[in-house]
Amino acid sequence: MGALDDCHYDVELENTMKIGCINLGLEENQQETSEIEDAVRVLLQGLGEDVNRDGIKKTPLRVAKALHHGTRGYKQSVKDIVQGALFPEAGLDNNQVVGHAGGSGGLVIVRDLDLFSYCESCLLPFQVKCHVGYVPCGQRVVGLSKLSRVADVFAKRLQDPQRLADEVCSALHHSIKPAGVAVVLQCHHIHFPTLESLFLDRRPEGLIKMVVSSGAGVFGEYDADIWKEFLCLLKLKKPMADKIRERNPANISWCPSSALSIVDYVNPNMVSAVGSILRSLGEDPSRQELVGTPARFVRWLMNFQNSNIEMKFNGFVSNKLETLKSNGEVKSNKKVHYELNIPFWSQCEHHLLPFHGVVHIGYFSNEEESQMKKSLFQSIVHFYGFKLQVQERLTRQIAETVAPLVGGDIMVVAEASHTCMISRGIEKCGSSTATVAVLGRFATDAGARASFLDSLPSTNDFHR
Amino acid sequence: MGALDDCHYDVELENTMKIGCINLGLEENQQETSEIEDAVRVLLQGLGEDVNRDGIKKTPLRVAKALHHGTRGYKQSVKDIVQGALFPEAGLDNNQVVGHAGGSGGLVIVRDLDLFSYCESCLLPFQVKCHVGYVPCGQRVVGLSKLSRVADVFAKRLQDPQRLADEVCSALHHSIKPAGVAVVLQCHHIHFPTLESLFLDRRPEGLIKMVVSSGAGVFGEYDADIWKEFLCLLKLKKPMADKIRERNPANISWCPSSALSIVDYVNPNMVSAVGSILRSLGEDPSRQELVGTPARFVRWLMNFQNSNIEMKFNGFVSNKLETLKSNGEVKSNKKVHYELNIPFWSQCEHHLLPFHGVVHIGYFSNEEESQMKKSLFQSIVHFYGFKLQVQERLTRQIAETVAPLVGGDIMVVAEASHTCMISRGIEKCGSSTATVAVLGRFATDAGARASFLDSLPSTNDFHR
Repeated sequence: MGALDDCHYDVELENTMKIGCINLGLEENQQETSEIEDAVRVLLQGLGEDVNRDGIKKTPLRVAKALHHGTRGYKQSVKDIVQGALFPEAGLDNNQVVGHAGGSGGLVIVRDLDLFSYCESCLLPFQVKCHVGYVPCGQRVVGLSKLSRVADVFAKRLQDPQRLADEVCSALHHSIKPAGVAVVLQCHHIHFPTLESLFLDRRPEGLIKMVVSSGAGVFGEYDADIWKEFLCLLKLKKPMADKIRERNPANISWCPSSALSIVDYVNPNMVSAVGSILRSLGEDPSRQELVGTPARFVRWLMNFQNSNIEMKFNGFVSNKLETLKSNGEVKSNKKVHYELNIPFWSQCEHHLLPFHGVVHIGYFSNEEESQMKKSLFQSIVHFYGFKLQVQERLTRQIAETVAPLVGGDIMVVAEASHTCMISRGIEKCGSSTATVAVLGRFATDAGARASFLDSLPSTNDFHR
Repeated sequence: MGALDDCHYDVELENTMKIGCINLGLEENQQETSEIEDAVRVLLQGLGEDVNRDGIKKTPLRVAKALHHGTRGYKQSVKDIVQGALFPEAGLDNNQVVGHAGGSGGLVIVRDLDLFSYCESCLLPFQVKCHVGYVPCGQRVVGLSKLSRVADVFAKRLQDPQRLADEVCSALHHSIKPAGVAVVLQCHHIHFPTLESLFLDRRPEGLIKMVVSSGAGVFGEYDADIWKEFLCLLKLKKPMADKIRERNPANISWCPSSALSIVDYVNPNMVSAVGSILRSLGEDPSRQELVGTPARFVRWLMNFQNSNIEMKFNGFVSNKLETLKSNGEVKSNKKVHYELNIPFWSQCEHHLLPFHGVVHIGYFSNEEESQMKKSLFQSIVHFYGFKLQVQERLTRQIAETVAPLVGGDIMVVAEASHTCMISRGIEKCGSSTATVAVLGRFATDAGARASFLDSLPSTNDFHR
């Protein structure tokens, strides 16, 4: 069930490059890094950026390092990881007592391992909550941390969730040689809506979620009792546990990029730059699942082309701005208004990775204006979001643009989840950021600030 | 407020040893490592262990690597981390608009960074949820990931929560030179009860929790509005937020080791071995806070001395065993009984780090026996817990010991949190493990297994 053939794994297991707990991903090839840097420069130029401006001049190096770090699994060997960590352990199977649990004892489970992987369809990182179970046999057990390390070898490649689960399962089954292995992955992929889809109000909510599983040996059939017991010990919610026990159809991609139309003109230099990145990472760009990836990535990246967006928005936004500006200045008798949870999508200019979240705007206004402002605020947020950005600047730009329309008194809070915080060296999965800008009365009136902050939602619903 | 003097930090910032996102903690000194290995061998011998047996013969090397990895902060330089990551960013402070938020814009916050540190009082790792806020000025912002990296430099040392908060705060304040910095740490330390305290039924619940904070610049006073706003954006629960705004008294240790009596004889060779570990890590064992640490560590470690525990328990347990054995065999008309959430503490023999959690036992028995069994089960669990162990063996040993007392039909599930999964290379904070053993009727009756598993608590209350 999902296990690849032995021959494939013998090669995989032999695939040598020494790793240890400390020297993971170090043997970077300078040439590979500089090839990626060149390719990233092509992408930045394609976006109409000045590759020498301060914020992005080191972006090519940062992207190259992050990609090498994030795909280091291509250079790691499962055999090296597992080899020194198989420990002899007396099992129930050589005991006089009647009955055993299929091997040296019963099921062993490691739950809730936070990993991340790279989507082979769009090249963006996705989060993985990984659960592994195995039934030891032959009187040996494996060190618990190795289940995580082996899973990570395959996560740190360009992947599809189902293949990732199958590869982790097969590698553990062939290297530990237990009675059986089960792998369950809860995967989370961000949406990347286009400006057009947002204008048509097709706003995606939350994250794309997918649960996949793979089993070998005593876990070879989903209706085996051991599968039920494993899932019970994972303590997942009932509907999810039921969903796990059916295999995901191989031909349906979970990645939102698969729905992107690539009829649009796509810059061929940028496409071939992405192809050269794939080769530098050790991938074969002609592999079936990767054939369309460079064009999809470029098509998506072009959403963040500075000039392009400005052209599209200019008429729309500036008309609205003018109307409100003239209104805003004559009105009086204003009350505090809050516009909460305005979604945004943006692109971190330091790492060329998305960050997304919500913007909250507090302002003083007449009651009857606020409906009109909501859609304008959303447009302004999208306008500044769809660029190469940093969150601090995004927050300031929104504040500075909205302030004159509402008489100058404004407070903006942006809350976001940064893909770069998850997928680079620091790998901080649960972290989120908040940035604040205040102008006018909000700058001097602590009470106004406090009452706005108190009104913010207590959970970060953009986050999960 | 809590900020150390400038001079100290100039030295800290200059303290050079190149690091980058990839080559952290690599420049291990072979000699330092082998000194730690020798010291660990002394500790294992002091515990009465055979240092050549399979499970532990590589433990000295594993401990040395883990300690070097976990205290790499001594060799890292904040200046190197921050230097390349200060980005020019226009701020509201040079804008025509009235009002600003104290610098280049408003507050910037990174929430929920999962770190771990080492307790200077007992040498065990503790978990840290770190929140950092700062107000940029001078028209520059720092890359968001650097807040995490700098915090980690100080976390990866022997620490006390309040000093950790102060050091992170000062280092950020001196290296970024913002209008102000605030740091809030939610720290979690495991208990390590002694066998004696457990027998007196003084069983600790959950984890020891401590919240500390530190502020500099505009965060210099806790009653400043900016502190309230920062805490509001952290979205902590109200009582916690109130607690943060008072400084922790410096003279009260949070570590449970401070309550340990060290009147008992402590092996001087083991104490001096721990002292040599401290020196190898780059610490000064005569530093005030570390003076008692080696003796405390050894005093605690001796809880896991194999023979010692067997002596203490032997009479107690075997008497009870005999009584039940003779009873157990003649009874009939048995029903399923579950004894859930029996707490245990143990010591991972691979890493010399604690793991702790709960054991659940399912068995068939006559109604009237079950009360008596509860205390016996708890004794057996402690008996096998207080040793150098692996979770798989612990589970099997409990099953094999209890089985004959209940007529042979038994299912044991152990759920645990392993300090070694948190504090070593893989740093998987949220993960937990489960191990299962089944004997007799439970081995053949899937329905009995399922109904036992269904009765397990759905949350891991040992975990947080």
